[in-house]
Amino acid sequence: MWKKWSSRVNEELNPGIDITVTVRGTLSKLRQSVNEADQRLVIPLSHGDPGALSGIRTSHTVEKAVVDALQSAKFNSCSEYINLLMSRVVADYLSRDLPYKLSPEDVYITSGCAQAMEIIVTVFAYPGANILLPRVGFPNYDARCAFSHLEVRHYDLLPEKGWEVDLDGVKALADENTIGILTINPGSPCGNVSSYDHLKKIAETAKELGILVITDEVYGHLTFGSKSVVPVGVFAPIAPVITLGSISKRWAVTGWKLGWFVTCDPSGNLQKSKIADYLKACLNIISDPVTFIQAALPEVLEKTESDFFLKRSVFLMAKLDVSFLQGIDDDVDFCFKLAKEESVMVLPGVIMGLKNWLRLRFALDVETL
Amino acid sequence: MWKKWSSRVNEELNPGIDITVTVRGTLSKLRQSVNEADQRLVIPLSHGDPGALSGIRTSHTVEKAVVDALQSAKFNSCSEYINLLMSRVVADYLSRDLPYKLSPEDVYITSGCAQAMEIIVTVFAYPGANILLPRVGFPNYDARCAFSHLEVRHYDLLPEKGWEVDLDGVKALADENTIGILTINPGSPCGNVSSYDHLKKIAETAKELGILVITDEVYGHLTFGSKSVVPVGVFAPIAPVITLGSISKRWAVTGWKLGWFVTCDPSGNLQKSKIADYLKACLNIISDPVTFIQAALPEVLEKTESDFFLKRSVFLMAKLDVSFLQGIDDDVDFCFKLAKEESVMVLPGVIMGLKNWLRLRFALDVETL
Repeated sequence: MWKKWSSRVNEELNPGIDITVTVRGTLSKLRQSVNEADQRLVIPLSHGDPGALSGIRTSHTVEKAVVDALQSAKFNSCSEYINLLMSRVVADYLSRDLPYKLSPEDVYITSGCAQAMEIIVTVFAYPGANILLPRVGFPNYDARCAFSHLEVRHYDLLPEKGWEVDLDGVKALADENTIGILTINPGSPCGNVSSYDHLKKIAETAKELGILVITDEVYGHLTFGSKSVVPVGVFAPIAPVITLGSISKRWAVTGWKLGWFVTCDPSGNLQKSKIADYLKACLNIISDPVTFIQAALPEVLEKTESDFFLKRSVFLMAKLDVSFLQGIDDDVDFCFKLAKEESVMVLPGVIMGLKNWLRLRFALDVETL
Repeated sequence: MWKKWSSRVNEELNPGIDITVTVRGTLSKLRQSVNEADQRLVIPLSHGDPGALSGIRTSHTVEKAVVDALQSAKFNSCSEYINLLMSRVVADYLSRDLPYKLSPEDVYITSGCAQAMEIIVTVFAYPGANILLPRVGFPNYDARCAFSHLEVRHYDLLPEKGWEVDLDGVKALADENTIGILTINPGSPCGNVSSYDHLKKIAETAKELGILVITDEVYGHLTFGSKSVVPVGVFAPIAPVITLGSISKRWAVTGWKLGWFVTCDPSGNLQKSKIADYLKACLNIISDPVTFIQAALPEVLEKTESDFFLKRSVFLMAKLDVSFLQGIDDDVDFCFKLAKEESVMVLPGVIMGLKNWLRLRFALDVETL
């Protein structure tokens, strides 16, 4: 029987994409290919993580809040209460940027956006369902869908239009088993910030198609220059929106794993269809974020010194013209040679779905940059 | 389209069990039904958690190790390295109780056992697959399987035989789509500890059926009296074993969310069938345990003062004979009235699959007990 079922596991996890190629796996291989004899400092432009190897340290206030919560010994256990308390804190925090008020019932506290997406995919992945993901996007989301047998359909981001969503393409892709469209804003890996008007059009398209908008706003507040980020939740009166967020990037603590997703749904579609009950049930059985870090959340959101928040963008996608480069086959070849010969780490675009582009990270201290 | 797909989500998540009934949800309702005017201390015999409301505080050494890791500011980011380092630490720690040596490749560091089970279920849940779970068991595992559309078949634990596994029942339940049998040892919620001979028989049965043994050993080392706990991994030369563990119960830090699963598989079945690759890939995209807590793991496992580890068991199942109790319908009725009238919280057995039993927790300071 071993043979029979193990080959079925294999078949099902080979849905046309190689789910064993991940950002993390590629970073790990890139780092191994840096020449250890090279005396120069490694320049890590490859990592998505504002903290990793960047010289950026989180705020002292935030660090102290976590230490205090831990040392109080009141937050060592799982707690069904802390989640409720923190839901209220996050509801208040996010409501400030919205034209309506979120309730704590709308908030699901998670171990970062990865777990938020996991719960969403788990609940929505009925056999035959599909979801619209951006190309270029975040490959872990593709893999997460594959693991839940949720079909992925890629819509395009248009580089010539500042990486706007190809809305005609979206309409052509959707059918009656499409549950939603995922947007990432500010964009990862492209670093673009969508305008109010464009986001409104996305919501109107979702309404027309009868689907959700799922929006990853983990890079919220991290932009170049003066462009401000409009939360997609603003358009929830048009179509239901699920917003993903976390403290990881803005506070440079990606290793703390504290985030949320929020149902922005003033018309109550998710409640009425009982989908909210299933999201709660899935949250109830899934691994919680660490209790003492949750307990520090009010301090993190409300007490961080404002000068900690520098205006900084995280990513940029750059096109690689291999015809100008002798002896370079493609973006993967370029990145591995760059790591080996120059100790500079850059992520090949093909990992995010865009061959012969490069993903560059700028969340570094100025000296390294 | 909204109507069409949201009703499909609903259908799929109604596989005959109500997955919205969870331990956490029940605890929350029980607590709400305690009479707030009652001046007496609430006696919480309902929680599974050695820390929660128990007066048991984790070791000072362990707490300090986490504070130090946090304050070093070296572990605020995600890190693909820390997982590798910690895999080695856990491999060494667990190998001491096994007749062969685990390699770091066998170890998957997770956010506790919940996440370990989540990865396992996610990878193994091909359409049509099934898994054998104990009745009485841990209802979150049933719900987790339901969310992944992995069919659950319940085998019995025999109360008259000290809650041993009904092995004939197991053989009758398995078919060619059965991927494994889950055991919980020491037992939760029954508090039983399986003998060497019985565990060996379970492994032999798994071999005969061509299935895995998945063993939840989160209560390892927590027993009444002199019975010692044999890790099921000892029998991995007979059939492949996946062992789940965590620091949560033994160190009274269920809110820290640090655990692991380990493939005990000296014959390399999981490697050869590529299942190990998929488990790694799923681990790579899933939310990590918090980095600075991981960094403290060597101190936690190796430096904790030995007098911190009291011999203590966590649970006991008690049969409720309602014929002796006037005005009590069943275990649920009994527990809610007990909470309301006496401020004593006990979990109804039906939540774990055993009607008219009660789950009592004993991991409390002596005074409260």
